Amino acid sequence: MAVNPLKNIRVVLCGTAHPGNIGAAARALKTMGLARLTLVAPERFPDPQAVRLASGATDVLRGARICASLDQALAGAAFAVACTARPRELAVTMVTAREAAARVIGVARTQPAALVFGNETFGLTGEDVGKCQLLATIPANPRYSSLNVAAAVQVFAYELRIAALGTAPAREKQRTLAVFEEIEGLYGHLERAMLETGYLNPGHPKKLMPRLRRLFGRAQLEQEEVNILRGIVKTLARPKLRKP
Amino acid sequence: MAVNPLKNIRVVLCGTAHPGNIGAAARALKTMGLARLTLVAPERFPDPQAVRLASGATDVLRGARICASLDQALAGAAFAVACTARPRELAVTMVTAREAAARVIGVARTQPAALVFGNETFGLTGEDVGKCQLLATIPANPRYSSLNVAAAVQVFAYELRIAALGTAPAREKQRTLAVFEEIEGLYGHLERAMLETGYLNPGHPKKLMPRLRRLFGRAQLEQEEVNILRGIVKTLARPKLRKP
Repeated sequence: MAVNPLKNIRVVLCGTAHPGNIGAAARALKTMGLARLTLVAPERFPDPQAVRLASGATDVLRGARICASLDQALAGAAFAVACTARPRELAVTMVTAREAAARVIGVARTQPAALVFGNETFGLTGEDVGKCQLLATIPANPRYSSLNVAAAVQVFAYELRIAALGTAPAREKQRTLAVFEEIEGLYGHLERAMLETGYLNPGHPKKLMPRLRRLFGRAQLEQEEVNILRGIVKTLARPKLRKP
Repeated sequence: MAVNPLKNIRVVLCGTAHPGNIGAAARALKTMGLARLTLVAPERFPDPQAVRLASGATDVLRGARICASLDQALAGAAFAVACTARPRELAVTMVTAREAAARVIGVARTQPAALVFGNETFGLTGEDVGKCQLLATIPANPRYSSLNVAAAVQVFAYELRIAALGTAPAREKQRTLAVFEEIEGLYGHLERAMLETGYLNPGHPKKLMPRLRRLFGRAQLEQEEVNILRGIVKTLARPKLRKP
């Protein structure tokens, strides 16, 4: 039975001060296909500011679970990651967001997992961190590492989605590349035209053809592009409109 | 001479409606070690809401460059990536944020590069996208792909930082890419020549220019290649040798 691991991950925000951050976090989760938001003792919730910043993710906001304690929020979770910007005295294993995401997805394919974020000003307490199995951080500018909490949720949620998708290819529209003969036909056409105009001097070719091959080779031409380029060369040499 | 590539990347926000998003984007940039923010025709800027959301990144905000057009914002940039949530009709090469970041960092080690983001509601226009060499997207929930613009900036900036930290420069022969004005000069030259010959029919342009932009955008033209292409067009139109 294939479980979507993203549906098995709860994101826990502890003691959030600004309701706007809760709304923005809900939106961040939904854009990455996550849906389970848990709020531990939020200062102001519900709040119209949260709804405003959730934009189209009010369903995630409405479905948010509100807990009195982190213990309650983590009940049933098989793996919890404390997400933090600050180095900890406590020698808990600290990994990057990317590595944490891979491990969370690994667990969440079969069991519930959690990411835990702290208050905007104070972060997570040592006690909170102690309730998690792993400490994770976003490698930030050492001179200014203060991500907004919703921005940090966005980055972690993004890494979770990428980890869940695996190495799926980008949504690229299928291109029909030109085949060998078509490409060679283009080069032959270009070469003849340049010889005819004198731009290509056979006695002193200056690597012109190899340079063009390198340029168009990099572009990996499509059939239609070959046709367009040949059309340009043909009409430039024999214009339909230009007066002699 | 080792350049920090993150200092060589400008983030361009086009037509941003909400000043809070500009402030949040400034903060996102600074947390990831980026500093160059460019604003194209922002609706409200400067604005106290931008300052509030920039938090400790008011230096980035104060240093923001304000431009009247995207052309002005991209002047001098050797590589520009259009960051978008929406699929485009024209099959411009679309890559993930991660792949785009690797490519931007590769260029930014020696030449200026840019990431371009659109308005909150309307995104980027097709014309804006046509001025970039690559289209990049954050793989999002297909049923709700609407990241807040500052959240998208955070994710791209994060990927740029990871790419800058993680990869030593590939020992590839250094290429000197053409800058924006040179590339636009080539397109202008091609367009005039095709209009003159009648290949490009202004009443029925058949996406000829967007297709050429896409082709040459993929190739990431070097300065010398731009000169060669312009030389070909020029001599085809006005041959030195061909008899009338």
